[in-house]
Amino acid sequence: MRFYNQLINESAPGALQAVPATTTVPSAEYPRVYADGRVIFRFHLPDAKTVQLEGGQGLCPKPVPLTKDADGYWTVTIPPSVMGFHYYWFNVDGVRMNDPGSQTFFGYNRETSGIELPDGQQISSDLVTAPVIPFYAPHEGAQGQLHEHSYLSQLTGKWRRCIVYTPPDYFDAANAGTRYPVLYLQHGAGEDETGWSRQGGVNFIMDNAIHGNSSNFFFRAGTTPEAKEMIVVMDNGYATYKQGTGSDGRDPSANYLPAFVRGDIEAFGDVLIKELIPMIDGKYRTIADRDHRAMAGLSMGGAQTMAIALSHLDMFSYIGTFSGAQFITPPASSGRATPPFEPGASYGGVFADAAAFNSKVRLLWMGAGTAELSLSESLRQNVEKLRAANIKVVQFHSPGTAHEWQTWRICLNKFAPLLFQA
Amino acid sequence: MRFYNQLINESAPGALQAVPATTTVPSAEYPRVYADGRVIFRFHLPDAKTVQLEGGQGLCPKPVPLTKDADGYWTVTIPPSVMGFHYYWFNVDGVRMNDPGSQTFFGYNRETSGIELPDGQQISSDLVTAPVIPFYAPHEGAQGQLHEHSYLSQLTGKWRRCIVYTPPDYFDAANAGTRYPVLYLQHGAGEDETGWSRQGGVNFIMDNAIHGNSSNFFFRAGTTPEAKEMIVVMDNGYATYKQGTGSDGRDPSANYLPAFVRGDIEAFGDVLIKELIPMIDGKYRTIADRDHRAMAGLSMGGAQTMAIALSHLDMFSYIGTFSGAQFITPPASSGRATPPFEPGASYGGVFADAAAFNSKVRLLWMGAGTAELSLSESLRQNVEKLRAANIKVVQFHSPGTAHEWQTWRICLNKFAPLLFQA
Repeated sequence: MRFYNQLINESAPGALQAVPATTTVPSAEYPRVYADGRVIFRFHLPDAKTVQLEGGQGLCPKPVPLTKDADGYWTVTIPPSVMGFHYYWFNVDGVRMNDPGSQTFFGYNRETSGIELPDGQQISSDLVTAPVIPFYAPHEGAQGQLHEHSYLSQLTGKWRRCIVYTPPDYFDAANAGTRYPVLYLQHGAGEDETGWSRQGGVNFIMDNAIHGNSSNFFFRAGTTPEAKEMIVVMDNGYATYKQGTGSDGRDPSANYLPAFVRGDIEAFGDVLIKELIPMIDGKYRTIADRDHRAMAGLSMGGAQTMAIALSHLDMFSYIGTFSGAQFITPPASSGRATPPFEPGASYGGVFADAAAFNSKVRLLWMGAGTAELSLSESLRQNVEKLRAANIKVVQFHSPGTAHEWQTWRICLNKFAPLLFQA
Repeated sequence: MRFYNQLINESAPGALQAVPATTTVPSAEYPRVYADGRVIFRFHLPDAKTVQLEGGQGLCPKPVPLTKDADGYWTVTIPPSVMGFHYYWFNVDGVRMNDPGSQTFFGYNRETSGIELPDGQQISSDLVTAPVIPFYAPHEGAQGQLHEHSYLSQLTGKWRRCIVYTPPDYFDAANAGTRYPVLYLQHGAGEDETGWSRQGGVNFIMDNAIHGNSSNFFFRAGTTPEAKEMIVVMDNGYATYKQGTGSDGRDPSANYLPAFVRGDIEAFGDVLIKELIPMIDGKYRTIADRDHRAMAGLSMGGAQTMAIALSHLDMFSYIGTFSGAQFITPPASSGRATPPFEPGASYGGVFADAAAFNSKVRLLWMGAGTAELSLSESLRQNVEKLRAANIKVVQFHSPGTAHEWQTWRICLNKFAPLLFQA
């Protein structure tokens, strides 16, 4: 595991030197990043006819062609991009390929290359000697831990896996009797339970939020409090009922999801409520009540959060969506329609009685990146509708970031300190 | 996470059906395995000129050509192979590429495709209805847990990561005062701290060994006892001293390693002894003495185990090597020579006084697969030398398995029950 403690900026001005990205594997020299934020990609395939770089919106909004040298190496240098984590791949003669030089991350329902970019703006020459350590990288000081659990789901008939974060103090002998609140935190479509720990750096974000370290970085603390020590649980958002199981006992909350995303996540709400939460409350020192339970998710996980938490307000009192897909309209190709969001009727009418909702829900928090234009705009519009209906809601728009992990890291950094403060 | 609970064997005899391998990603249909153990690989790259399958010795000892259809899909079906986990990749016009249809695993210093194969021999038709669950897959019943820790190493100046397994009973309230012995378990060259948990299934092997479940599988329990509950710690075996650190304080045990493997693992012994073990003894309820501490490793990790444990017998009393590289001779290309193993002189003369050694070391265990011919033979020869010198040593030869994870899984399955029984 490597982090950008420093980027090389040697010798004469203008001759900036590049170093392998922190996500580059030890056997490879590329991709490399320059101190000014540019990135060089390189790929060896002498017999290919065309190679293009494709990937996250913040990295390359359009495919970027690579050019081949006499030795069969395809290369391109791209200008400074949005900092943080981006998925990417090469389009080789029309076929999607990973970069053998890079680590892979589970996204798009497959292993996908990813690159972690430092901030080209921040890393100006005077900062090279005073390293910039982001809020999603480890700091010295007490660390939380990540845990992995396999469990056999009776509802799906399959082994599942979840990842659990425990805060820095959890295992101190002095805290052996202390119980903690829990945040259930979901990944997006095509990802899995490893998304938040691998792409997201959830443990570092939480550690830093708890220690108040986020003020070391570009997000000045301002009025943001330090986060409470809490447990974070990340499960796989995909689940289908075991073959032969009838519809009896199926959670109707699934029906709050737009039909076009229901498919292979149909059973997830049931698994979460009936299997995962009881298991976590059994294995960990949780405070097992609604006042100390939150749910949040990104994109598809945001849609799941709305569907599940809003239909189980007896179990959750803090709700967050990051680039949440709850407000999107179905793609035209789906041939299906979701009714527009209406506070009086949507989500089983949970917003209809604003006073009741506001007294029950301690936080409804919704974030998006300004570069994910339609989600950002739909968030703005629907928050207006909620507010017109007197629902208390916090909205956050992350400047310049897209439908990518940097938006979701920032959302968690903003959201976590607001939890369980009452 | 999927396991082979059952393989499809529908309809007429001879028309055996194939299912995606458990290591195939959800977005892909290939690679697929047949109930009789054959495997189909498929790869889409219309413009490639040649595609070959390459990988682990147990999967394809020689490159296997794929053939292209009119739609640009390259396909091959291979005969039943050695069961278990194999690394593989495609050689595309001379360039190594991963299979987009498969999960990747950290091996060969990069992300590498891997496939988990069921046993073609065992999975005959009568067993399809009585599923074969291997000793490295989850069973119902109490599960141990995996934990992940990041720590800043003062010796290397870098953040490092280790994975820790705690046994099923560790977090039971009734055991809050119980302390456990610890096994330090290392990966091989080109792998990292995730090898044992991802490729190896260490948590399932340990759970099953502790529950005595291994008798459910092809390794009949016989006289093998159930394993003790123990903690297992898996660190990254690569470490180099921080720049500017002199040689003062370097662990001389590094010098027991053949020079040609020393390079980027030079500092590992020091990190293990001075940083990792104290951290683990601080964070976990360990029994922090030599009688309750073991070290083992595979291949390069076996060489490290010998170098480190034999020079720190005040800290370890159980030692295991799985396909350990301690006895190999340097590759001719290295231009370097290691003296042949001599019990009277090698490893600082630790074997010279057999009575002293045998009274100190409760178990010296060495395993290899019979299909890794030179390692298997050198193990046999050197165990003879050890026995001629009156050193007590257990050797194990895994039938038909090669320098691959199936050998190391079996070694751990055999080794773990012998630990801490005194």
